[in-house]
Amino acid sequence: MAKKIKIAYIGGGSKQWARVFMNDLILNDSLNGELALYDIDVDSAIRNKKIGERLCELQEAKSKWDFSVHEEIGTALTGADFIVISILPGTFEEMRSDVHTPEKYGIYQPVGDTAGPGGILRSMRTVPIYEQFAKDIEKYSPDAWVINFTNPMSILVKTLYDVFPKIKAFGCCHEVFNAQDFLTLVLEKVKGIERPDRHDIYTDASGVNHFTWITEATYGDIDILALLPEFEKQYPDGILLRPFRESFLDDHAKVKMDLYKRYDAMGAAGDRHLVEFCNSNFYLKDKDYCKNWGFNLTTVDFRQERQDIRVAESIAMAEGTMPVELKKSSEEAVELMKAIAGQGTIVSNVNMPNIGQMASMPNGSIVETNCIFTHNLVQPIVAKELPTAALNLVHRAGLNIDATYEGIKERDLKKLFATFADQPLCANLDLETAYNLFKEMCMNTKEYLEPFFDLSVL
Amino acid sequence: MAKKIKIAYIGGGSKQWARVFMNDLILNDSLNGELALYDIDVDSAIRNKKIGERLCELQEAKSKWDFSVHEEIGTALTGADFIVISILPGTFEEMRSDVHTPEKYGIYQPVGDTAGPGGILRSMRTVPIYEQFAKDIEKYSPDAWVINFTNPMSILVKTLYDVFPKIKAFGCCHEVFNAQDFLTLVLEKVKGIERPDRHDIYTDASGVNHFTWITEATYGDIDILALLPEFEKQYPDGILLRPFRESFLDDHAKVKMDLYKRYDAMGAAGDRHLVEFCNSNFYLKDKDYCKNWGFNLTTVDFRQERQDIRVAESIAMAEGTMPVELKKSSEEAVELMKAIAGQGTIVSNVNMPNIGQMASMPNGSIVETNCIFTHNLVQPIVAKELPTAALNLVHRAGLNIDATYEGIKERDLKKLFATFADQPLCANLDLETAYNLFKEMCMNTKEYLEPFFDLSVL
Amino acid sequence: MAKKIKIAYIGGGSKQWARVFMNDLILNDSLNGELALYDIDVDSAIRNKKIGERLCELQEAKSKWDFSVHEEIGTALTGADFIVISILPGTFEEMRSDVHTPEKYGIYQPVGDTAGPGGILRSMRTVPIYEQFAKDIEKYSPDAWVINFTNPMSILVKTLYDVFPKIKAFGCCHEVFNAQDFLTLVLEKVKGIERPDRHDIYTDASGVNHFTWITEATYGDIDILALLPEFEKQYPDGILLRPFRESFLDDHAKVKMDLYKRYDAMGAAGDRHLVEFCNSNFYLKDKDYCKNWGFNLTTVDFRQERQDIRVAESIAMAEGTMPVELKKSSEEAVELMKAIAGQGTIVSNVNMPNIGQMASMPNGSIVETNCIFTHNLVQPIVAKELPTAALNLVHRAGLNIDATYEGIKERDLKKLFATFADQPLCANLDLETAYNLFKEMCMNTKEYLEPFFDLSVL
Amino acid sequence: MAKKIKIAYIGGGSKQWARVFMNDLILNDSLNGELALYDIDVDSAIRNKKIGERLCELQEAKSKWDFSVHEEIGTALTGADFIVISILPGTFEEMRSDVHTPEKYGIYQPVGDTAGPGGILRSMRTVPIYEQFAKDIEKYSPDAWVINFTNPMSILVKTLYDVFPKIKAFGCCHEVFNAQDFLTLVLEKVKGIERPDRHDIYTDASGVNHFTWITEATYGDIDILALLPEFEKQYPDGILLRPFRESFLDDHAKVKMDLYKRYDAMGAAGDRHLVEFCNSNFYLKDKDYCKNWGFNLTTVDFRQERQDIRVAESIAMAEGTMPVELKKSSEEAVELMKAIAGQGTIVSNVNMPNIGQMASMPNGSIVETNCIFTHNLVQPIVAKELPTAALNLVHRAGLNIDATYEGIKERDLKKLFATFADQPLCANLDLETAYNLFKEMCMNTKEYLEPFFDLSVL
Repeated sequence: MAKKIKIAYIGGGSKQWARVFMNDLILNDSLNGELALYDIDVDSAIRNKKIGERLCELQEAKSKWDFSVHEEIGTALTGADFIVISILPGTFEEMRSDVHTPEKYGIYQPVGDTAGPGGILRSMRTVPIYEQFAKDIEKYSPDAWVINFTNPMSILVKTLYDVFPKIKAFGCCHEVFNAQDFLTLVLEKVKGIERPDRHDIYTDASGVNHFTWITEATYGDIDILALLPEFEKQYPDGILLRPFRESFLDDHAKVKMDLYKRYDAMGAAGDRHLVEFCNSNFYLKDKDYCKNWGFNLTTVDFRQERQDIRVAESIAMAEGTMPVELKKSSEEAVELMKAIAGQGTIVSNVNMPNIGQMASMPNGSIVETNCIFTHNLVQPIVAKELPTAALNLVHRAGLNIDATYEGIKERDLKKLFATFADQPLCANLDLETAYNLFKEMCMNTKEYLEPFFDLSVL
Repeated sequence: MAKKIKIAYIGGGSKQWARVFMNDLILNDSLNGELALYDIDVDSAIRNKKIGERLCELQEAKSKWDFSVHEEIGTALTGADFIVISILPGTFEEMRSDVHTPEKYGIYQPVGDTAGPGGILRSMRTVPIYEQFAKDIEKYSPDAWVINFTNPMSILVKTLYDVFPKIKAFGCCHEVFNAQDFLTLVLEKVKGIERPDRHDIYTDASGVNHFTWITEATYGDIDILALLPEFEKQYPDGILLRPFRESFLDDHAKVKMDLYKRYDAMGAAGDRHLVEFCNSNFYLKDKDYCKNWGFNLTTVDFRQERQDIRVAESIAMAEGTMPVELKKSSEEAVELMKAIAGQGTIVSNVNMPNIGQMASMPNGSIVETNCIFTHNLVQPIVAKELPTAALNLVHRAGLNIDATYEGIKERDLKKLFATFADQPLCANLDLETAYNLFKEMCMNTKEYLEPFFDLSVL
Repeated sequence: MAKKIKIAYIGGGSKQWARVFMNDLILNDSLNGELALYDIDVDSAIRNKKIGERLCELQEAKSKWDFSVHEEIGTALTGADFIVISILPGTFEEMRSDVHTPEKYGIYQPVGDTAGPGGILRSMRTVPIYEQFAKDIEKYSPDAWVINFTNPMSILVKTLYDVFPKIKAFGCCHEVFNAQDFLTLVLEKVKGIERPDRHDIYTDASGVNHFTWITEATYGDIDILALLPEFEKQYPDGILLRPFRESFLDDHAKVKMDLYKRYDAMGAAGDRHLVEFCNSNFYLKDKDYCKNWGFNLTTVDFRQERQDIRVAESIAMAEGTMPVELKKSSEEAVELMKAIAGQGTIVSNVNMPNIGQMASMPNGSIVETNCIFTHNLVQPIVAKELPTAALNLVHRAGLNIDATYEGIKERDLKKLFATFADQPLCANLDLETAYNLFKEMCMNTKEYLEPFFDLSVL
Repeated sequence: MAKKIKIAYIGGGSKQWARVFMNDLILNDSLNGELALYDIDVDSAIRNKKIGERLCELQEAKSKWDFSVHEEIGTALTGADFIVISILPGTFEEMRSDVHTPEKYGIYQPVGDTAGPGGILRSMRTVPIYEQFAKDIEKYSPDAWVINFTNPMSILVKTLYDVFPKIKAFGCCHEVFNAQDFLTLVLEKVKGIERPDRHDIYTDASGVNHFTWITEATYGDIDILALLPEFEKQYPDGILLRPFRESFLDDHAKVKMDLYKRYDAMGAAGDRHLVEFCNSNFYLKDKDYCKNWGFNLTTVDFRQERQDIRVAESIAMAEGTMPVELKKSSEEAVELMKAIAGQGTIVSNVNMPNIGQMASMPNGSIVETNCIFTHNLVQPIVAKELPTAALNLVHRAGLNIDATYEGIKERDLKKLFATFADQPLCANLDLETAYNLFKEMCMNTKEYLEPFFDLSVL
């Protein structure tokens, strides 16, 4: 029998992720209930409500959901069993500064939302918002499970736990799934066996979000990582993963394999993400260098266009001028919620504070490892130790996040600049140039920063 | 398609556990291959081979196994995928000393094979044997998975890892299963729902073997531990668990509940085991005191008689004068082996060195927690922190084991006496009396100790 | 040139310790300034002021001090560079219950103010008072150095840090000094060299207050601990330390040596204290058993009488009818203050939160180790690891303190009883008896407990 | 009375450091005995013996020493109380490759013997030699105290402990002393007080060798670090420290101050060393960039010339054609030896395995912190936590050392290249260029590498 729950959705006006989530929700058959949409953009939330209601009417729908729209976060949160958060901090204009301003300084970021200059600035805009979310959750629904989807993932999960230590939160990201998909391809190509589903292999992944590593990958007793050298011999240029996607998102797994070759553990996120945690010159030496490594820089223009299309679609779907259809995504959020609600047990990788799952990372740093989800519990699995040199990169990324968080929490621009200059993507800058870039990026996005930071000291 | 494997069985002449194991093995349908029996008692191993062969001929048999008997451990181990170890160190005469000699000094042990005076002496006999096993495994089958069933569990697993650090070993024990069974009963009695199978609830268990604690027990979103006060009100004298068993093994769960009442976490082993980690006066003040707590002292006479029956049965079964039948046990060893062999994923509690699963226990101490078994991997799950006072008892037990191991490894009777006197079960002795007891127990079992220890210093 | 400082003295009406402290202060020549006495017993504080003023007038006085008496803690604390705290929680009537009520249950406590039943009850009375002190210090003098002398030492220092984490506090105790004195005696007796001052040897001490251990003791390159077996052969009954003291405080070092014999590290506090952390039967089996071990039980009658004499002396000294004289004590508080004030560097053992000085103890537990005092800094020295079996006893004591603190902080009598029953001194009690004793002791002292605890649940 | 000891000197033919050491030794008045010189360059050792004997004859000599020369290490070590090690691995030709080859690739190293390309290559030459030293010490003088002076300091101390875990070794370096000297200058300039000796202030230093940081610096209750901003205002270009030295060794403390400005802790080594742990572009962007920061690149030509002069001096002194004179150096080695020998207590910063002194660094990494030296003991003092961003740099340096050690121990060039490419000084290279540089440097020094590494795989 399906279980009745209430889900609050912060950022419920989302143009993309909300639809994906509603699809998966409606296609599940063991949960039903209410989805409470909260967004500062109420119109978008109302559109999502309408889309959700249309989806529920489809024949393929397997569960019934009521949709509500909230102008105040409190009513959305009250009584919630689960809270999902997926917001866009600032607008595409701010994102444009995050991603493209550093290019003037020779820094190329394929994504620009996690590490590097873009990641720091985006953190500065987003963490203060999450500080408030954490307080609201403590006030209105302290027992709810909180699932974060917003980037920069690690620092936002850290914010939630730091402000409200008893929160039951974790952060979900599908990047490791893609790495698992790649490994099933390796199995197929090297061993000549029919490509299994990624759920049929087991991987031990650990690291920080978007810079996770796979240290073990087994299919029965086949050690998949050990097949990589042979695979690389066959495909020295890698293979295009997910070719149906826009070329801006290309990934040939060349970076993943290069990391394996040097570090004895495989990078386990999209190549576009992994490279943002490495020295600029390794994979992003100049604007076209990335092509050698089989990936592209995603422009904000592209993002903007894609978003415009989605908005148009949303309006059309909401107004009924465009058909809606139900399709299961490759995301796991609904599966995790089911397991937590007592419907089965599942292992997946999520982001949580370190309590022992990565023994060599600082206690309390947000790390991504496998966890077990079951019966109202989420428990991390102790990850295999990373090889020393890989651990060094991950530890550095982790402390950079912790230092960034400290700087934002204390509204201390000096601390923020120190960690800004120490980003691997800034390795090519001298200190004066780094400072100029930092200042320029702050000024570009001052509308969103000035409520929290005193920019006049810059 | 079933996978072909070789299992080496050290102690393959076992009178009880071998039969249970062969049953489960033959009733599984995804593994088959060879079971190589090694025992210093070759005749018993030969009998088990014959029994195994008869079982395989039964119509209900789901997999085919070849059985071999080995007089040398090397041939048994060579080529093994799995090694199971289940031996009896010494004879019932030594066990008689372990269990009953302390009674003269006012110390009553329901089991006497893990903690307390009996546990120390049994450790002194068994650890040196396991030192050799570890060396043999390193030599003959370093990549095999090793499953230990012999008590004292923790110290023997510690021995294996200390002598051969790269060993892939874990220790299995069913005691937590019984505690889970009890919790399903609580669910039934308090919530009036049909009693679920223990696999349908989830428990977070942690501690050291035979002194594990359940800190979380959930059935969907029902917090089962929170039902205990109501259950206790209904059943102030507990309920006899597993009434089909001999009264010597009675368990009314009164100790488990008492621990929960005082420590906010439930003891998760048979009451007979739990009490051996507590001060004598708590549950074992005098010979009959245990009756107040719903359990009995198991005599070695009873064990001897039970064993005699089993030997007679074994002979009859081997000779074909007694019918054999296949019956699945409640043990999980075969399930774990299947998962490791790549046939599914399973979570179960086993004993392994601490690498982060119990953050407050020393690194390297052998702890029992949930682990995930899958595709050639066994990975511990980080356990919820024990309440401080319970942690104190468990930590004390853990360091007592480490100190005992140190004393045996260094063949240092002084160190062994120090930890002997500090056993909770010895809390009522003065130092002189404790020394006399220690010396008497050493002398009683000197046949098995003198090859390793210089008893003349006592 | 002497440095001018302000010292606030909480408990400044103290009958004994205040005089000792004023003596050492006035006999130092590098600090001078103001001593601000605060006490709820204002009359006593006024008497101490008068005594202090008389002492300052003596020819031997080396520094000038102004004395002030404060009825409000705020004025005493404001502007203080140092704060010393030395109070008596409750009266001798409460202490009588702490020490002697357990005797009816077969528990004999030579001191009864740290561990065991007496220690728990005294903690319950004192911690709530210290919670307020911590808040006052945060408010009035957050930068002052705080030196605690009150027992139970560990839990009170823990309280200060838990309530006001940035406090600069440590706890001073002279017990290790006595153990060092004993070791100089060993040097003399075994090596035949002239007995050196305790400052001329070096000891590495670690543990929790009153249950510290010496793991290294060197005089040049002489390993003093290695001399203990020879010393014991010469003096099987030990030697009476400090024979000038009342027999109630006798210490023949027999317990210290016995611990060394069994644990390879020497107990480093008065024997009367050490035994309170061991099972009752080891050294306190019955009322007279302690005589075998060369120490006595200190009665509260004795304490009362001694106190009466001291009060009479104080009155006489304050009124000028009794001469005052200056005499340097063996305490180190003033030396530590001098070093902190930048007048030299000194190593001494004090009680502080664990930040790495005892790697095997929990972070944040209050441990006693050597620290270096110098130029406005106090930094712990990493202690040598305790032998495993000794570590087990110390760790147990440490977690018992942490659990007691947790129970008091949460005003949770259930938690308090759990740790009460687990005290080594309660090892002989069954649970029902332990509960009766706990209840009786709470009721005896309810005047001081009821403001904080709901005793009606007992 | 002076204590008689034997000191073994590995590298006893040293051209510079041996003379310094002999001076300090002969000028001390509490130790005397034998100095056993071992060197593969026997002639140089013989010269040092002669120089030592001449020094002893001077009137100012305060202690008598016998000098012996050993062609076999065993006789030098046997019976030693102390062992000092100070060797040059390879010749100036290898050093030329270490320091200058990277310049072709845009990497400028002022020293080139610790971190960066030069540090890695020098480690590869030296660690295998130290593996043998550790075995020799275990064999011939396991109880001796071992003082290392050779660079790269951290990895060599790590080698000693990894090969012979019970060794009593530490590494001495004077770089922190210079930072302390600078702070006394700051005191003088800002506070207008007479410049005190560096021993009169207290600093808490921590980090890895040549990349240590001062987190606290106090003079009485003056916080010296807090004076740095004012000092920098007065001296925006720093002040030349030790102007008597060759300009190649110039240090204006500008880097130290820049680090303080950004990280809230002051770099505490020569600026020339500190910059080698930072991204190239920060202080070493091009060949002349360092001039902006007040330091120079030390050429190997300069080193060679200086060495030639020293050799000529040594010959002349040994032959008696040049006068010898006794002069106390600013080194502390002899002071530390005196303290260990039981002549007083001293606090100094040395390099030892982390056992808690830096809680956020990995256990067992070699860290430099204050330690207390006294009576046959050296015990680390727990250092104040570094600010997060500074900790990140130090942790990165520490794991780079650990990874380098792992690569050398396993003779694994792949691992070595991984950590080579991750050196901050290599941050400007792409992977292919980094590999070419690594290969070129290996080939340049192959005479010293081929006995240990299979270079054909490059």
